[in-house]
Amino acid sequence: MTVYFPEVRDRIRYEGPDTKNPLAFRVYDADRIVAGKKMSEHLRFAVCFWHTMRGTGADPFGGASFERPWGRESDPRAAEDSTLEAAFEFFSKLGVGFWCFHDRDVATPEKTLAETRKHLDRVVKKAARFQDETGVRLLWGTANLFSHPRYTHGAATNPDPLVFAHAAAQVRGAIDATIELGGSAYVLWGGREGYSTLLNTDLRQEREQLASFLHLAAEYAREAGFRGTLLIEPKPMEPSKHQYDFDAATTLGFLREFGLFDRFWLNVEANHATLAGHSWEHDLRVASIAGKLGSLDVNRGDPTLGWDTDQFPTDLYDATAAMRVILEQGGLTTRRCAADPSTRPTSSTRTSAGWTPSRAGSSSRTG
Amino acid sequence: MTVYFPEVRDRIRYEGPDTKNPLAFRVYDADRIVAGKKMSEHLRFAVCFWHTMRGTGADPFGGASFERPWGRESDPRAAEDSTLEAAFEFFSKLGVGFWCFHDRDVATPEKTLAETRKHLDRVVKKAARFQDETGVRLLWGTANLFSHPRYTHGAATNPDPLVFAHAAAQVRGAIDATIELGGSAYVLWGGREGYSTLLNTDLRQEREQLASFLHLAAEYAREAGFRGTLLIEPKPMEPSKHQYDFDAATTLGFLREFGLFDRFWLNVEANHATLAGHSWEHDLRVASIAGKLGSLDVNRGDPTLGWDTDQFPTDLYDATAAMRVILEQGGLTTRRCAADPSTRPTSSTRTSAGWTPSRAGSSSRTG
Amino acid sequence: MTVYFPEVRDRIRYEGPDTKNPLAFRVYDADRIVAGKKMSEHLRFAVCFWHTMRGTGADPFGGASFERPWGRESDPRAAEDSTLEAAFEFFSKLGVGFWCFHDRDVATPEKTLAETRKHLDRVVKKAARFQDETGVRLLWGTANLFSHPRYTHGAATNPDPLVFAHAAAQVRGAIDATIELGGSAYVLWGGREGYSTLLNTDLRQEREQLASFLHLAAEYAREAGFRGTLLIEPKPMEPSKHQYDFDAATTLGFLREFGLFDRFWLNVEANHATLAGHSWEHDLRVASIAGKLGSLDVNRGDPTLGWDTDQFPTDLYDATAAMRVILEQGGLTTRRCAADPSTRPTSSTRTSAGWTPSRAGSSSRTG
Amino acid sequence: MTVYFPEVRDRIRYEGPDTKNPLAFRVYDADRIVAGKKMSEHLRFAVCFWHTMRGTGADPFGGASFERPWGRESDPRAAEDSTLEAAFEFFSKLGVGFWCFHDRDVATPEKTLAETRKHLDRVVKKAARFQDETGVRLLWGTANLFSHPRYTHGAATNPDPLVFAHAAAQVRGAIDATIELGGSAYVLWGGREGYSTLLNTDLRQEREQLASFLHLAAEYAREAGFRGTLLIEPKPMEPSKHQYDFDAATTLGFLREFGLFDRFWLNVEANHATLAGHSWEHDLRVASIAGKLGSLDVNRGDPTLGWDTDQFPTDLYDATAAMRVILEQGGLTTRRCAADPSTRPTSSTRTSAGWTPSRAGSSSRTG
Repeated sequence: MTVYFPEVRDRIRYEGPDTKNPLAFRVYDADRIVAGKKMSEHLRFAVCFWHTMRGTGADPFGGASFERPWGRESDPRAAEDSTLEAAFEFFSKLGVGFWCFHDRDVATPEKTLAETRKHLDRVVKKAARFQDETGVRLLWGTANLFSHPRYTHGAATNPDPLVFAHAAAQVRGAIDATIELGGSAYVLWGGREGYSTLLNTDLRQEREQLASFLHLAAEYAREAGFRGTLLIEPKPMEPSKHQYDFDAATTLGFLREFGLFDRFWLNVEANHATLAGHSWEHDLRVASIAGKLGSLDVNRGDPTLGWDTDQFPTDLYDATAAMRVILEQGGLTTRRCAADPSTRPTSSTRTSAGWTPSRAGSSSRTG
Repeated sequence: MTVYFPEVRDRIRYEGPDTKNPLAFRVYDADRIVAGKKMSEHLRFAVCFWHTMRGTGADPFGGASFERPWGRESDPRAAEDSTLEAAFEFFSKLGVGFWCFHDRDVATPEKTLAETRKHLDRVVKKAARFQDETGVRLLWGTANLFSHPRYTHGAATNPDPLVFAHAAAQVRGAIDATIELGGSAYVLWGGREGYSTLLNTDLRQEREQLASFLHLAAEYAREAGFRGTLLIEPKPMEPSKHQYDFDAATTLGFLREFGLFDRFWLNVEANHATLAGHSWEHDLRVASIAGKLGSLDVNRGDPTLGWDTDQFPTDLYDATAAMRVILEQGGLTTRRCAADPSTRPTSSTRTSAGWTPSRAGSSSRTG
Repeated sequence: MTVYFPEVRDRIRYEGPDTKNPLAFRVYDADRIVAGKKMSEHLRFAVCFWHTMRGTGADPFGGASFERPWGRESDPRAAEDSTLEAAFEFFSKLGVGFWCFHDRDVATPEKTLAETRKHLDRVVKKAARFQDETGVRLLWGTANLFSHPRYTHGAATNPDPLVFAHAAAQVRGAIDATIELGGSAYVLWGGREGYSTLLNTDLRQEREQLASFLHLAAEYAREAGFRGTLLIEPKPMEPSKHQYDFDAATTLGFLREFGLFDRFWLNVEANHATLAGHSWEHDLRVASIAGKLGSLDVNRGDPTLGWDTDQFPTDLYDATAAMRVILEQGGLTTRRCAADPSTRPTSSTRTSAGWTPSRAGSSSRTG
Repeated sequence: MTVYFPEVRDRIRYEGPDTKNPLAFRVYDADRIVAGKKMSEHLRFAVCFWHTMRGTGADPFGGASFERPWGRESDPRAAEDSTLEAAFEFFSKLGVGFWCFHDRDVATPEKTLAETRKHLDRVVKKAARFQDETGVRLLWGTANLFSHPRYTHGAATNPDPLVFAHAAAQVRGAIDATIELGGSAYVLWGGREGYSTLLNTDLRQEREQLASFLHLAAEYAREAGFRGTLLIEPKPMEPSKHQYDFDAATTLGFLREFGLFDRFWLNVEANHATLAGHSWEHDLRVASIAGKLGSLDVNRGDPTLGWDTDQFPTDLYDATAAMRVILEQGGLTTRRCAADPSTRPTSSTRTSAGWTPSRAGSSSRTG
């Protein structure tokens, strides 16, 4: 078996603030008890497959600039395998308990949906084995409904029913994969569920299609036996000029309008909140007081830039504010949500704020 | 009777695009039939009392720079009278059919609420007489819940119950005045219903207080026999760092959450939408597809500035987009809403979009 | 010879505002005399090779979505040829008098600089022939110093001298190509001449390197006999977090600081000005009153977005403002600059504003 | 003598991080030696008279909300006296070594310039006595060229020569006052030296007027024997839509263009830099590498707001970045600049970066 990170023999360990070892934790000490719980229970970090394993360093003005020792094989299957292998070596050496992925991150799309699904299933089986071996668990799965040209004008909100159907089939596969891997949550991010111009957009119909899609997804997840949390990740723009899941408040309003409030929670990303003109804390609190803070995406932005930079969350003020929200709502990890029916988010019928979402499969990811 | 605008003998008239007269309409021809209706019915312009009559030209870096021939008397009553007199001369010479005002624009606050109310009532009687004489009607009234220091930390959302009560009493008076003057609508703009920092703000409680306040206002309006439309005017910030009525989507979500959706419509201001990161058309459409576009505030901003500049709406693209939304929803003036029970906005029980708000007391103001 | 645009038999013609033909000019009438000059002389439009011929429709969240009938050959040389052929068919059928390109748009980079140069020279010869045949002229050439991974941390400002040298060699090749094709101007856009963070950036040294690079480029252009205008195209950010050529004022200050003021003019792009927090007109005027408005890049942005959208300039207000600046400074096309030594921009020694840049090879491009 | 701050008997003292006393320094220990110098020498804090003593808590949507025990007398002279008295009590009890002021903060304007000057002179004499008694020194003086209606359309850039002349006379008086009080620097902030719209602005003339004004001010300062530093404080907008001193780079370019580079240094405000789309550190470095970082205005803004909030600088990252710039350029206080001819900023003739401005009267203010 290839070793991709030979510079770490076993795993990154806590060595305290004074260590000279660059590959050591200085503050994070997984087993240390803080406020009655282990740090690793407070902070259920997950590594994103796409940023960490599949990121290329490309930007709109330049191509790939990362050279990775994995995933370089010309045969797609071999490339999938080496990338997955490297990923789990990375997760376990890093000592992070969770990972998350898009369907298209782990399995290269093929000509037909059926064929792509076959490869996805193959990779998922392999990932399940790696999970067993390493103890790393799936925080959440999701479907990439934005990279393929067919999604240029939306997936769920696309005026073409075939695209809607294709997206639905993809979500079905990604939910199946998430169930198979015991994921705590399933995330929907609708980067192309928006518009470029109102001149050719039927706002009413697109929003209704989006609601139908979410109803279908929730229904399927329930029937398929998914016990985790369904999460929506708001973002105001990019790649769309305007995205329907603009921010926490807009998304909650949408869920209430279309009878989806009991089925979905929010995954609040720092950089998405700031692009919408809010502080991250604001969107966390908006979600939290609605009983709907399900998970955190800790990637932050740059206050002078108008696009998503997905930087590491190195700002103590933001981190402290986020932690305060989490602690005030009773913690994100008092009960695990996945694979434990008694802790599945209940269908709340309250229409006003007040519920403490202690059951949500909340956690933070970084990538 | 003093004449404040002697340069206009009678009124501003339509003289066509080629006139050399600077005080003439070149395009707007009130009685011209366009798309089956008079221009004056499509465009129910109103003049704002505060900008037009009480504006001083002050900004955060400098004091009053306008010198007006009215309102200069040292006796507050005499100043109120001359300002009102000048206002109605202005309205009728301009040929605009409507006006709108805050309670504190027309009546200077005195030491006690009761005393201030007495003066407000006096002015309202006078205004009613002017309305009769000129045919100018009240588009809407509102209460100024932001200028007095007591409102520094909010009116409805203030942690001090006395401030809440004071605000409620003020709204009662302003609703009474609006009814007395036959106003088509009553507007609530909560410029200080927000926060400066989340460090000392209980978001949940403040939003609940705001909802209670709106319930009280709606209840009172109903009981007092107000037959117009209740409008909320969203704005994302300024003077607050964050205002709870951030934009159309946020406000509609709030109304749904707190059981207020059937009672309130939106007054969408161009500059407020753009400060929230949207186009004006976007917020108009969001309100419109929810059946909640009640009125337009056409003041626009400057795309390079981050504060409300309240400029005249001279951009054809914005104006066309707004007009398109109005026409698509069946027009804003097919039925007047005020003083006509059969056309009062009905209490819709629908939770999703679909209702055409043709009955709302919609209109546009400028100032 | 393949025909790529069979739907246009000969060329797009002016057919007046009432034509039903979608492929006709409704307003632009090349030979019409306006204010003493042909419209085609006022508006020296150029088509950008990269947007129009090489654009793929990709964005940071999705891959290529355009399917073009040219440039699909697996052999790079054949792909270069078909793209160039399609381009000149497009230019002449559109009836636009100019084109512009990056070195890497027309010639695919090979392993060595020498080899790439060989292919560039081949393509340039071909382009020269197409120019002769069609009468389309080169407005300007430029070098792509941002797409290749070597330029990730800057070209002229890169801490690695080999990268600096590579960039210099590329600019030399692009200047040679521009001379060969009789280009009116040569443009330098330094998208990666900036920083991601100040924590690892020596601002002083990077700016000095940039100045040295510009001195070298100007010196080479002079020696090589280039008689066109050297242009810098400011942009505040993207891909860099901060770009040294932030806006017109910053760039002019830089040119003054480093003794480059007499050698360079500005190419002011609408969207770049707005990303810097200015109106386009502002940056045009700043350049114009310094006698330094060389050319216009008319691509505009979206006021709600924080990245470069390069949209078509469909806003009449912006277009009018730009035209006003052009007319006030005596027109952009009273004298052509290329290939005519008597009209080469003179080396002005003035340090304050006042010079009318009527000699600059100014023009507008779209893409 | 009235005591305005009885809750502090003597002065605020350093009591260490664990003190329970709210009116104690926890970190700042004036006499502690850090990196070879006292903290009070590294950090030459100054209190702004306008924010601290004359601030009213008003904003564009509400009037004064602060009730102060000073300056309430109806007689302007008595009000000036009590405010000055309270100010010096505040400065010395706070233990801050410097203050700064506008001419109009300390002396209420009267009908004529001569009369106002007489009162200014009176107050300045009083302030000089307070300085002697308390040891508090003047960091800098400045003239308020923005509050009076005459400056609505600019002071130095006003099209009316009488306004230009009035502004010049005011600056003369403020420079005299600064000399009289031994100020280390004199600051020019041109909040209204900009435009509201380019439609009626002659950009070229306004910038030339501004340059003339600065030449006059510098000439007068030299002749009057001022030995401190002349500082310009850039700001991009507010109250103007666009201000000519947009940011550090623009201002330095302006100084170079008009032969003013040797005479002026920059006072870089955190919130002004961020409003211009930069980090504070960016503008500090731009000034510093040009040898032109004269002073710091540490008021910061809010990243979600588009206007100047002048908040206290509580962000460690910004403070650290600023301190790093200061230390890298050799410190701001190695030599005092005021009243010491040997350390007056020399007239550098270099046109490129490279000079270490260790002699500048640099310091930081808060208010």
